[in-house]
Amino acid sequence: MNFITFTESNLRDFTFNVFKKMGCSDEHATLATDVLIRSDLRGIDSHGVARLSGYVRLWEKKRINATPNIKIVHETPTTATVDGDAGLGLVVAPFAMKIAIEKAEKYGSGWVSVKNSNHFGIAGYHALLAVEQDMIGISMTNASPLVAPTYSSERLLGTNPMCYAFPAGKYPPVIVDMATAAAANGKLEIAQRANKAIPDGWVQDKSGDSSTNPNELKSGGSLLPLGSDKDHGSHKGYGLSATVDILSAVLSGANYGPWVPPFVAFLEPSANPVGEGLGHFLGAMRVDGFRPKEDFKNHLDNWVERFKNANTIDPDKKVIIPGEPEHAFEQERKVSGIPIIDVVVQDLNDLAKKLGIDGLA
Amino acid sequence: MNFITFTESNLRDFTFNVFKKMGCSDEHATLATDVLIRSDLRGIDSHGVARLSGYVRLWEKKRINATPNIKIVHETPTTATVDGDAGLGLVVAPFAMKIAIEKAEKYGSGWVSVKNSNHFGIAGYHALLAVEQDMIGISMTNASPLVAPTYSSERLLGTNPMCYAFPAGKYPPVIVDMATAAAANGKLEIAQRANKAIPDGWVQDKSGDSSTNPNELKSGGSLLPLGSDKDHGSHKGYGLSATVDILSAVLSGANYGPWVPPFVAFLEPSANPVGEGLGHFLGAMRVDGFRPKEDFKNHLDNWVERFKNANTIDPDKKVIIPGEPEHAFEQERKVSGIPIIDVVVQDLNDLAKKLGIDGLA
Repeated sequence: MNFITFTESNLRDFTFNVFKKMGCSDEHATLATDVLIRSDLRGIDSHGVARLSGYVRLWEKKRINATPNIKIVHETPTTATVDGDAGLGLVVAPFAMKIAIEKAEKYGSGWVSVKNSNHFGIAGYHALLAVEQDMIGISMTNASPLVAPTYSSERLLGTNPMCYAFPAGKYPPVIVDMATAAAANGKLEIAQRANKAIPDGWVQDKSGDSSTNPNELKSGGSLLPLGSDKDHGSHKGYGLSATVDILSAVLSGANYGPWVPPFVAFLEPSANPVGEGLGHFLGAMRVDGFRPKEDFKNHLDNWVERFKNANTIDPDKKVIIPGEPEHAFEQERKVSGIPIIDVVVQDLNDLAKKLGIDGLA
Repeated sequence: MNFITFTESNLRDFTFNVFKKMGCSDEHATLATDVLIRSDLRGIDSHGVARLSGYVRLWEKKRINATPNIKIVHETPTTATVDGDAGLGLVVAPFAMKIAIEKAEKYGSGWVSVKNSNHFGIAGYHALLAVEQDMIGISMTNASPLVAPTYSSERLLGTNPMCYAFPAGKYPPVIVDMATAAAANGKLEIAQRANKAIPDGWVQDKSGDSSTNPNELKSGGSLLPLGSDKDHGSHKGYGLSATVDILSAVLSGANYGPWVPPFVAFLEPSANPVGEGLGHFLGAMRVDGFRPKEDFKNHLDNWVERFKNANTIDPDKKVIIPGEPEHAFEQERKVSGIPIIDVVVQDLNDLAKKLGIDGLA
């Protein structure tokens, strides 16, 4: 595998041009670009520009509306439901988080459930918007059904990530941002490219037997929930995924469970949807709604230090603080650029040609 | 193992008398009793009357205050921090949830972080208080450090449960109530009593090697986070446990991580605490803050039906709806009584003798 390294601004310009070609406003194109590039900066390569042509294909199929009228359809002082009007989740989710933050500024907390949206990129991006305001940020989304609940041979849930983000003092924010499956689809794709077996406990085949074949999903297999099997708590991973699904979609009026529209454009959405688009759930709570923010940050710093300095099994490995590796990537890639794998560069240049814009390299 | 079956009211009377002997008010004794008995009714035997003598021992050591002055020490319209005054968590947590519910009635949502508390029983009890008001209930607590984060050889976190509960229409509430460890301590105790090996992936020994010995924690071993090992996502279980710890304790001013006071009375709390007691986090959101509640309930019923009727690997097993087994236990045990294992009955009768009250049988 070869990587080509691009500067952040190079990738931003390219991505902005793609969204503009789709018909997005300058404001929306800038925002959607920011979500994708921040993912690449933070080392979450699967959710950055690698997804760009996927968004374009959904737009070509008219499943993404590049000029959505995103609006609140129901609210109380601290809760709201947002209709994303089939817009890019990359734009809809920050809109919803902005509402949550405004409500939190006034009342201490704000919570927004979103329907009629699309894939929103990395959950951490949206939660960090709250952290920048000294708030605790929460973000979740449901996703294409790939995961089988405990005992099921059917895929009924997405990898449904949940994210909790907390502002620290001298340390980077603590950000727990995780798929509720044992392993996200991106890890299977890496094994597919390397032609390698995957560990037991990530997927089952279509009969429900454990499999180490990274291509098993193409033959009717399923991802497994966090916990992998009943003995190891897969019912907990299933329960977390269900929680994300209910907060994001049953609460907002989006599609849930097996009805969530697939991210890939070659699979058609359900002919009998139970809601509109897919759903997200965003929340913000003011830290100083609970205690003075400096107290919170000092204690979170203390928490971080205690965990960083824990005795470890292997003296060469330290306990990892959630969010710290991504923060380190971001500092480094802002300076030395963002490496993109050659197959993705090729895909992006093909996309540029199709759209009639300048390629990447 | 022999079980003796008691009526609900028999167990309630006994438990009430124990709390009264500790000096609790009638109101507090009734409430604490309700939390424990509901756990037994719901089939969560590890968290019911089996814990009663543990609470008494903590009270004898003056680590539980039977007559606490529980109060709000900081608040906004939708957030609050509660000081539990070292009271029973069984009493402090419902007090805090009541505040969350009142705030949600007025503003759509309410969130309370609690310090200076003790073990609060089953998380589901508190979340269900919100569900009864057609709200979504959230409850979490930190707990004695028994779990090693990924790569750590030290116990730094509790089994820190999180619970999300949702009101359905014709079905019982959907209640995701789970320890964030691969297996809670209660499962080890069952294996200890049966003198049986436990599955790989539940505990590690003091050097960090996987172990199947259910007594490993007594030799310096640790429980493992949900996910069991890095390959299977233990960093996610660790991240969830960290989230519970931060929301419950860093946010409220309770002890966190390895400083959380142990539940067992024979272990002393840290001589250098970083906060007061242990912490909880409770939340309530009005369903109709997002959409009409009948719409939500109808769709949640549809969600439940789709999952219940999923194709399964083994035709004799169905996909379990979170909260449904506990609901079925509750219906059944309300009628046919609550079976208590003989060693617990003996322990409770010893307790009765010590306190000078009537025994159970």
